[in-house]
Amino acid sequence: MKVLVVGANGQIGKQLVDLLNESSEHEVRAMLREPEQTPEFEDKGVETTIASLEGTVEDIASAAKGCDAIVFAAGSGGHTGLDKTLLVDLDGAVKTVEAAEQVGIGRFIMVSALQAHKRENWSEVIKPYYVAKHYADRALLQSSLNYTIIRPGGLLNEPGTGKVQIAENLKTGTIPRVDVAKTILACLNEESAFKKSFDLISGDMDIAEAIRSI
Amino acid sequence: MKVLVVGANGQIGKQLVDLLNESSEHEVRAMLREPEQTPEFEDKGVETTIASLEGTVEDIASAAKGCDAIVFAAGSGGHTGLDKTLLVDLDGAVKTVEAAEQVGIGRFIMVSALQAHKRENWSEVIKPYYVAKHYADRALLQSSLNYTIIRPGGLLNEPGTGKVQIAENLKTGTIPRVDVAKTILACLNEESAFKKSFDLISGDMDIAEAIRSI
Repeated sequence: MKVLVVGANGQIGKQLVDLLNESSEHEVRAMLREPEQTPEFEDKGVETTIASLEGTVEDIASAAKGCDAIVFAAGSGGHTGLDKTLLVDLDGAVKTVEAAEQVGIGRFIMVSALQAHKRENWSEVIKPYYVAKHYADRALLQSSLNYTIIRPGGLLNEPGTGKVQIAENLKTGTIPRVDVAKTILACLNEESAFKKSFDLISGDMDIAEAIRSI
Repeated sequence: MKVLVVGANGQIGKQLVDLLNESSEHEVRAMLREPEQTPEFEDKGVETTIASLEGTVEDIASAAKGCDAIVFAAGSGGHTGLDKTLLVDLDGAVKTVEAAEQVGIGRFIMVSALQAHKRENWSEVIKPYYVAKHYADRALLQSSLNYTIIRPGGLLNEPGTGKVQIAENLKTGTIPRVDVAKTILACLNEESAFKKSFDLISGDMDIAEAIRSI
Protein backbone atom coordinates (compact mmCIF):
# COMPACT_ATOMS: atom_id res chain seq x y z
CA MET A 1 0.00 0.00 0.00
CA LYS A 2 1.10 3.51 -0.75
CA VAL A 3 0.11 5.65 2.23
CA LEU A 4 -0.30 9.41 2.37
CA VAL A 5 0.54 10.68 5.83
CA VAL A 6 -1.27 13.96 6.48
CA GLY A 7 0.46 15.83 9.28
CA ALA A 8 3.74 14.08 8.49
CA ASN A 9 5.72 16.73 10.33
CA GLY A 10 3.76 16.19 13.53
CA GLN A 11 4.93 14.10 16.46
CA ILE A 12 2.93 10.99 15.57
CA GLY A 13 3.26 11.69 11.84
CA LYS A 14 7.06 11.61 11.87
CA GLN A 15 7.19 8.27 13.66
CA LEU A 16 4.60 6.81 11.30
CA VAL A 17 6.51 8.02 8.24
CA ASP A 18 9.65 6.29 9.56
CA LEU A 19 7.79 3.04 10.23
CA LEU A 20 6.24 3.07 6.76
CA ASN A 21 9.55 3.94 5.19
CA GLU A 22 11.24 0.98 6.91
CA SER A 23 8.41 -1.42 6.12
CA SER A 24 8.73 -3.84 3.19
CA GLU A 25 4.97 -3.94 2.80
CA HIS A 26 4.20 -0.25 2.28
CA GLU A 27 5.36 2.92 0.60
CA VAL A 28 4.88 6.38 2.05
CA ARG A 29 4.27 9.92 0.86
CA ALA A 30 4.60 12.67 3.47
CA MET A 31 2.18 15.58 3.12
CA LEU A 32 3.83 18.75 4.43
CA ARG A 33 2.65 22.33 4.75
CA GLU A 34 5.95 24.10 4.08
CA PRO A 35 8.60 23.41 1.42
CA GLU A 36 11.23 24.02 4.14
CA GLN A 37 10.05 20.84 5.86
CA THR A 38 10.94 18.59 2.91
CA PRO A 39 14.75 18.10 3.25
CA GLU A 40 14.40 16.26 6.56
CA PHE A 41 12.16 13.73 4.80
CA GLU A 42 13.89 13.57 1.45
CA ASP A 43 17.23 12.92 3.17
CA LYS A 44 15.66 9.70 4.41
CA GLY A 45 14.41 8.84 0.92
CA VAL A 46 10.80 9.71 1.74
CA GLU A 47 8.59 11.10 -1.04
CA THR A 48 7.01 14.42 -0.09
CA THR A 49 4.15 16.59 -1.30
CA ILE A 50 3.21 20.11 -0.28
CA ALA A 51 -0.39 20.95 0.58
CA SER A 52 -2.12 22.96 3.25
CA LEU A 53 -5.14 21.71 5.18
CA GLU A 54 -6.38 25.30 4.96
CA GLY A 55 -6.35 25.07 1.17
CA THR A 56 -9.01 23.50 -1.02
CA VAL A 57 -10.23 19.92 -1.24
CA GLU A 58 -8.64 19.89 -4.70
CA ASP A 59 -5.22 20.82 -3.25
CA ILE A 60 -5.39 17.85 -0.91
CA ALA A 61 -6.77 15.58 -3.64
CA SER A 62 -3.81 16.44 -5.89
CA ALA A 63 -1.40 15.66 -3.06
CA ALA A 64 -3.11 12.32 -2.44
CA LYS A 65 -3.44 11.09 -6.02
CA GLY A 66 -1.84 7.69 -6.55
CA CYS A 67 -1.99 6.64 -2.90
CA ASP A 68 -4.03 3.69 -1.65
CA ALA A 69 -4.62 4.93 1.88
CA ILE A 70 -4.61 8.16 3.86
CA VAL A 71 -3.71 8.59 7.51
CA PHE A 72 -4.88 11.84 9.07
CA ALA A 73 -2.38 12.46 11.87
CA ALA A 74 -2.44 16.26 11.70
CA GLY A 75 -3.33 18.49 14.61
CA SER A 76 -3.18 22.20 15.03
CA GLY A 77 -1.46 21.58 18.35
CA GLY A 78 -1.55 23.34 21.66
CA HIS A 79 0.39 26.41 20.53
CA THR A 80 -2.16 27.81 18.11
CA GLY A 81 -5.58 29.31 18.74
CA LEU A 82 -9.02 27.76 18.42
CA ASP A 83 -9.28 29.30 14.95
CA LYS A 84 -6.85 26.59 13.83
CA THR A 85 -8.81 23.98 15.77
CA LEU A 86 -11.80 24.85 13.59
CA LEU A 87 -9.85 25.31 10.35
CA VAL A 88 -7.42 22.38 10.65
CA ASP A 89 -8.65 19.76 13.15
CA LEU A 90 -12.23 20.00 11.92
CA ASP A 91 -12.48 21.47 8.43
CA GLY A 92 -9.00 20.29 7.34
CA ALA A 93 -9.84 16.74 8.38
CA VAL A 94 -13.19 16.77 6.59
CA LYS A 95 -11.60 18.23 3.46
CA THR A 96 -9.13 15.32 3.55
CA VAL A 97 -12.04 12.87 3.75
CA GLU A 98 -13.65 14.60 0.77
CA ALA A 99 -10.35 14.55 -1.13
CA ALA A 100 -10.08 10.79 -0.54
CA GLU A 101 -13.58 10.30 -1.93
CA GLN A 102 -12.80 12.58 -4.86
CA VAL A 103 -9.75 10.62 -6.01
CA GLY A 104 -11.12 7.21 -5.03
CA ILE A 105 -8.82 6.37 -2.14
CA GLY A 106 -10.87 3.93 -0.10
CA ARG A 107 -8.82 3.37 3.04
CA PHE A 108 -8.70 6.14 5.67
CA ILE A 109 -7.30 6.09 9.18
CA MET A 110 -8.11 8.98 11.49
CA VAL A 111 -6.16 9.81 14.62
CA SER A 112 -8.82 11.09 16.98
CA ALA A 113 -8.89 11.39 20.78
CA LEU A 114 -10.02 9.11 23.62
CA GLN A 115 -13.83 9.26 24.02
CA ALA A 116 -14.26 11.84 21.25
CA HIS A 117 -17.52 10.03 20.41
CA LYS A 118 -19.03 10.61 23.87
CA ARG A 119 -19.84 14.20 24.82
CA GLU A 120 -20.39 13.37 28.47
CA ASN A 121 -16.76 12.30 28.84
CA TRP A 122 -15.11 15.39 27.35
CA SER A 123 -12.81 17.05 29.86
CA GLU A 124 -13.90 20.59 30.58
CA VAL A 125 -10.55 22.19 29.72
CA ILE A 126 -10.24 20.92 26.17
CA LYS A 127 -13.92 20.55 25.34
CA PRO A 128 -13.74 22.84 22.27
CA TYR A 129 -10.97 20.63 20.86
CA TYR A 130 -13.15 17.58 21.42
CA VAL A 131 -16.01 19.24 19.52
CA ALA A 132 -13.73 19.62 16.49
CA LYS A 133 -12.47 16.02 16.68
CA HIS A 134 -16.01 14.71 17.20
CA TYR A 135 -17.43 16.29 14.05
CA ALA A 136 -14.39 15.34 11.98
CA ASP A 137 -14.91 11.72 13.06
CA ARG A 138 -18.62 11.95 12.28
CA ALA A 139 -17.91 13.13 8.75
CA LEU A 140 -15.63 10.14 8.22
CA LEU A 141 -18.22 7.74 9.66
CA GLN A 142 -20.81 9.17 7.26
CA SER A 143 -18.49 8.97 4.27
CA SER A 144 -18.23 6.11 1.82
CA LEU A 145 -14.68 5.30 2.98
CA ASN A 146 -13.31 2.21 4.66
CA TYR A 147 -12.36 3.95 7.88
CA THR A 148 -10.58 3.20 11.10
CA ILE A 149 -10.93 5.82 13.82
CA ILE A 150 -8.23 5.45 16.46
CA ARG A 151 -8.88 7.38 19.67
CA PRO A 152 -5.67 7.39 21.74
CA GLY A 153 -5.45 8.54 25.34
CA GLY A 154 -2.96 11.10 26.64
CA LEU A 155 0.04 11.14 24.28
CA LEU A 156 3.51 10.61 25.72
CA ASN A 157 6.97 10.95 24.21
CA GLU A 158 8.24 7.89 26.12
CA PRO A 159 9.70 4.86 24.36
CA GLY A 160 7.07 2.44 23.12
CA THR A 161 6.14 -0.78 24.86
CA GLY A 162 4.37 -2.36 21.90
CA LYS A 163 1.64 -3.38 24.33
CA VAL A 164 -1.78 -1.77 24.21
CA GLN A 165 -5.38 -1.95 25.29
CA ILE A 166 -8.11 -1.42 22.70
CA ALA A 167 -11.84 -1.14 23.35
CA GLU A 168 -14.94 0.74 22.23
CA ASN A 169 -14.80 2.63 25.54
CA LEU A 170 -11.86 3.12 27.87
CA LYS A 171 -12.14 5.41 30.85
CA THR A 172 -8.72 7.06 30.85
CA GLY A 173 -5.08 6.33 30.12
CA THR A 174 -1.95 7.32 28.26
CA ILE A 175 0.12 5.90 25.43
CA PRO A 176 3.52 6.68 23.88
CA ARG A 177 3.18 8.31 20.46
CA VAL A 178 5.31 5.60 18.86
CA ASP A 179 2.79 2.96 19.97
CA VAL A 180 0.02 4.97 18.31
CA ALA A 181 2.10 5.05 15.11
CA LYS A 182 2.66 1.27 15.34
CA THR A 183 -1.06 0.71 15.84
CA ILE A 184 -1.86 2.77 12.74
CA LEU A 185 0.64 0.71 10.74
CA ALA A 186 -0.85 -2.55 12.01
CA CYS A 187 -4.38 -1.41 11.14
CA LEU A 188 -3.72 -0.56 7.50
CA ASN A 189 -4.32 -4.01 6.03
CA GLU A 190 -6.02 -5.64 9.00
CA GLU A 191 -9.62 -6.49 8.19
CA SER A 192 -10.62 -6.54 11.88
CA ALA A 193 -9.96 -2.80 11.89
CA PHE A 194 -12.05 -1.97 8.83
CA LYS A 195 -15.03 0.28 9.59
CA LYS A 196 -14.16 0.32 13.27
CA SER A 197 -13.60 3.04 15.88
CA PHE A 198 -11.86 2.40 19.18
CA ASP A 199 -10.15 3.92 22.19
CA LEU A 200 -6.43 3.10 22.56
CA ILE A 201 -4.15 3.23 25.60
CA SER A 202 -1.10 1.34 26.83
CA GLY A 203 -1.91 -2.16 28.03
CA ASP A 204 -0.61 -5.69 28.10
CA MET A 205 -1.58 -7.07 24.70
CA ASP A 206 0.54 -7.12 21.55
CA ILE A 207 -0.72 -4.53 19.08
CA ALA A 208 -1.60 -7.01 16.31
CA GLU A 209 -3.40 -9.26 18.74
CA ALA A 210 -5.30 -6.34 20.30
CA ILE A 211 -6.51 -5.19 16.88
CA ARG A 212 -7.65 -8.67 15.91
CA SER A 213 -9.64 -8.84 19.15
CA ILE A 214 -11.75 -5.79 18.31
CA MET B 1 -47.90 25.39 15.77
CA LYS B 2 -46.12 25.67 19.08
CA VAL B 3 -42.62 26.89 18.38
CA LEU B 4 -39.57 26.63 20.62
CA VAL B 5 -37.26 29.56 19.96
CA VAL B 6 -33.69 28.63 20.90
CA GLY B 7 -31.67 31.77 21.47
CA ALA B 8 -34.83 33.70 22.37
CA ASN B 9 -32.79 36.38 24.13
CA GLY B 10 -30.73 37.06 21.01
CA GLN B 11 -31.33 39.90 18.58
CA ILE B 12 -33.21 37.85 16.00
CA GLY B 13 -34.70 35.60 18.68
CA LYS B 14 -36.41 38.46 20.53
CA GLN B 15 -38.07 39.77 17.37
CA LEU B 16 -39.19 36.28 16.39
CA VAL B 17 -40.66 35.66 19.84
CA ASP B 18 -42.67 38.88 19.54
CA LEU B 19 -43.95 37.98 16.07
CA LEU B 20 -44.96 34.49 17.21
CA ASN B 21 -46.57 35.92 20.34
CA GLU B 22 -48.66 38.34 18.26
CA SER B 23 -49.57 35.72 15.66
CA SER B 24 -52.97 34.04 15.82
CA GLU B 25 -51.61 30.97 14.08
CA HIS B 26 -48.79 30.02 16.45
CA GLU B 27 -47.77 29.72 20.07
CA VAL B 28 -44.28 30.32 21.35
CA ARG B 29 -41.95 29.02 24.06
CA ALA B 30 -38.77 31.00 24.63
CA MET B 31 -35.70 28.96 25.56
CA LEU B 32 -33.41 31.02 27.77
CA ARG B 33 -30.07 30.32 29.42
CA GLU B 34 -30.53 32.33 32.61
CA PRO B 35 -33.54 32.55 34.93
CA GLU B 36 -32.88 36.30 35.16
CA GLN B 37 -33.88 36.60 31.51
CA THR B 38 -37.41 35.32 32.07
CA PRO B 39 -39.30 38.39 33.46
CA GLU B 40 -38.84 40.34 30.21
CA PHE B 41 -40.63 37.53 28.38
CA GLU B 42 -43.19 36.59 31.00
CA ASP B 43 -44.28 40.22 31.27
CA LYS B 44 -45.38 39.89 27.65
CA GLY B 45 -47.20 36.65 28.37
CA VAL B 46 -44.56 34.50 26.70
CA GLU B 47 -43.95 30.99 28.05
CA THR B 48 -40.30 30.41 28.97
CA THR B 49 -38.05 27.47 29.66
CA ILE B 50 -34.48 27.41 30.98
CA ALA B 51 -31.85 25.28 29.25
CA SER B 52 -28.24 25.75 28.26
CA LEU B 53 -26.89 24.79 24.86
CA GLU B 54 -23.79 23.70 26.75
CA GLY B 55 -25.89 21.20 28.70
CA THR B 56 -26.96 17.77 27.53
CA VAL B 57 -29.21 16.74 24.66
CA GLU B 58 -31.66 15.62 27.34
CA ASP B 59 -31.74 19.13 28.87
CA ILE B 60 -32.71 20.59 25.51
CA ALA B 61 -35.16 17.76 24.80
CA SER B 62 -36.95 18.46 28.09
CA ALA B 63 -37.17 22.14 27.22
CA ALA B 64 -38.59 21.30 23.79
CA LYS B 65 -41.15 18.69 24.78
CA GLY B 66 -44.66 19.57 23.61
CA CYS B 67 -43.54 21.88 20.81
CA ASP B 68 -44.21 21.23 17.12
CA ALA B 69 -41.25 23.13 15.72
CA ILE B 70 -37.85 24.42 16.79
CA VAL B 71 -36.12 27.54 15.51
CA PHE B 72 -32.40 27.68 16.24
CA ALA B 73 -31.63 31.41 16.38
CA ALA B 74 -28.85 31.21 18.97
CA GLY B 75 -25.36 32.46 18.40
CA SER B 76 -22.43 32.83 20.74
CA GLY B 77 -22.01 36.34 19.34
CA GLY B 78 -18.97 38.45 18.64
CA HIS B 79 -18.14 39.13 22.29
CA THR B 80 -17.18 35.59 23.28
CA GLY B 81 -14.25 33.47 22.21
CA LEU B 82 -14.03 30.71 19.65
CA ASP B 83 -14.50 28.18 22.45
CA LYS B 84 -18.15 29.26 22.49
CA THR B 85 -18.27 29.12 18.69
CA LEU B 86 -17.39 25.43 18.97
CA LEU B 87 -19.53 24.72 22.05
CA VAL B 88 -22.63 26.76 21.14
CA ASP B 89 -22.79 27.52 17.41
CA LEU B 90 -21.66 24.03 16.44
CA ASP B 91 -22.20 21.50 19.22
CA GLY B 92 -25.15 23.37 20.76
CA ALA B 93 -26.90 23.47 17.40
CA VAL B 94 -26.31 19.78 16.74
CA LYS B 95 -27.49 18.87 20.24
CA THR B 96 -30.69 20.79 19.49
CA VAL B 97 -31.14 18.78 16.28
CA GLU B 98 -30.63 15.58 18.26
CA ALA B 99 -33.08 16.77 20.92
CA ALA B 100 -35.71 17.39 18.22
CA GLU B 101 -35.22 13.86 16.92
CA GLN B 102 -35.35 12.48 20.45
CA VAL B 103 -38.72 14.00 21.30
CA GLY B 104 -40.18 13.66 17.79
CA ILE B 105 -40.37 17.32 16.80
CA GLY B 106 -40.25 17.17 13.02
CA ARG B 107 -39.98 20.80 11.93
CA PHE B 108 -36.66 22.60 12.40
CA ILE B 109 -35.55 25.99 11.14
CA MET B 110 -31.87 26.91 11.38
CA VAL B 111 -30.56 30.45 11.19
CA SER B 112 -27.25 30.02 9.41
CA ALA B 113 -25.08 32.51 7.48
CA LEU B 114 -24.85 33.58 3.83
CA GLN B 115 -22.86 31.02 1.80
CA ALA B 116 -22.16 28.82 4.83
CA HIS B 117 -22.50 25.86 2.46
CA LYS B 118 -19.65 27.02 0.18
CA ARG B 119 -16.15 27.03 1.65
CA GLU B 120 -14.68 29.06 -1.21
CA ASN B 121 -16.90 32.02 -0.30
CA TRP B 122 -16.07 32.23 3.41
CA SER B 123 -14.59 35.59 4.29
CA GLU B 124 -11.10 35.24 5.74
CA VAL B 125 -11.84 37.15 8.94
CA ILE B 126 -14.70 35.01 10.21
CA LYS B 127 -13.76 31.72 8.58
CA PRO B 128 -13.67 29.79 11.89
CA TYR B 129 -17.26 30.92 12.57
CA TYR B 130 -18.28 29.70 9.13
CA VAL B 131 -16.74 26.30 9.85
CA ALA B 132 -18.98 25.98 12.91
CA LYS B 133 -22.13 27.06 11.03
CA HIS B 134 -21.29 24.78 8.11
CA TYR B 135 -21.05 21.62 10.18
CA ALA B 136 -24.14 22.50 12.21
CA ASP B 137 -26.07 22.87 8.94
CA ARG B 138 -24.64 19.58 7.67
CA ALA B 139 -25.86 17.76 10.77
CA LEU B 140 -29.36 19.12 10.19
CA LEU B 141 -29.27 18.16 6.51
CA GLN B 142 -28.27 14.62 7.48
CA SER B 143 -30.94 14.36 10.16
CA SER B 144 -34.42 12.95 9.73
CA LEU B 145 -36.00 16.37 10.33
CA ASN B 146 -38.06 18.54 8.02
CA TYR B 147 -35.56 21.38 7.89
CA THR B 148 -35.30 24.86 6.50
CA ILE B 149 -31.82 26.39 6.58
CA ILE B 150 -31.97 30.17 6.23
CA ARG B 151 -28.62 31.81 5.44
CA PRO B 152 -29.00 35.57 5.91
CA GLY B 153 -26.44 38.16 4.77
CA GLY B 154 -24.98 40.86 7.02
CA LEU B 155 -27.43 41.51 9.85
CA LEU B 156 -28.65 45.07 10.45
CA ASN B 157 -30.67 46.64 13.23
CA GLU B 158 -32.55 48.87 10.77
CA PRO B 159 -36.35 48.82 10.44
CA GLY B 160 -37.60 46.04 8.21
CA THR B 161 -38.71 46.54 4.63
CA GLY B 162 -40.59 43.24 4.32
CA LYS B 163 -38.93 42.83 0.94
CA VAL B 164 -36.28 40.20 0.36
CA GLN B 165 -34.28 38.25 -2.16
CA ILE B 166 -33.98 34.50 -1.75
CA ALA B 167 -31.81 32.13 -3.78
CA GLU B 168 -29.61 29.07 -3.47
CA ASN B 169 -26.60 31.36 -3.95
CA LEU B 170 -26.36 35.12 -3.43
CA LYS B 171 -23.03 36.86 -3.68
CA THR B 172 -23.32 39.40 -0.88
CA GLY B 173 -25.84 41.63 0.84
CA THR B 174 -27.40 42.71 4.10
CA ILE B 175 -30.80 42.38 5.76
CA PRO B 176 -32.50 43.86 8.84
CA ARG B 177 -32.84 41.32 11.64
CA VAL B 178 -36.61 41.84 11.78
CA ASP B 179 -36.91 40.73 8.15
CA VAL B 180 -35.02 37.55 9.01
CA ALA B 181 -37.48 36.98 11.86
CA LYS B 182 -40.43 37.57 9.50
CA THR B 183 -38.95 35.13 6.98
CA ILE B 184 -38.63 32.46 9.67
CA LEU B 185 -42.26 33.01 10.64
CA ALA B 186 -43.40 32.77 7.03
CA CYS B 187 -41.44 29.54 6.49
CA LEU B 188 -42.90 27.62 9.41
CA ASN B 189 -45.96 26.24 7.61
CA GLU B 190 -44.93 26.94 4.03
CA GLU B 191 -44.38 23.73 2.11
CA SER B 192 -42.13 25.45 -0.44
CA ALA B 193 -39.63 25.92 2.38
CA PHE B 194 -39.63 22.30 3.56
CA LYS B 195 -36.25 20.57 3.16
CA LYS B 196 -34.78 23.68 1.60
CA SER B 197 -31.68 25.81 2.24
CA PHE B 198 -31.27 29.30 0.87
CA ASP B 199 -29.36 32.58 1.09
CA LEU B 200 -31.43 35.60 2.19
CA ILE B 201 -30.81 39.33 1.76
CA SER B 202 -32.95 42.43 1.34
CA GLY B 203 -34.59 42.66 -2.07
CA ASP B 204 -37.75 43.69 -3.81
CA MET B 205 -40.05 40.73 -3.34
CA ASP B 206 -42.61 40.20 -0.58
CA ILE B 207 -41.37 37.59 1.88
CA ALA B 208 -44.21 35.11 1.30
CA GLU B 209 -43.88 35.43 -2.46
CA ALA B 210 -40.09 35.02 -2.29
CA ILE B 211 -40.42 31.83 -0.24
CA ARG B 212 -42.98 30.36 -2.63
CA SER B 213 -40.60 31.05 -5.52
CA ILE B 214 -37.81 28.88 -4.06
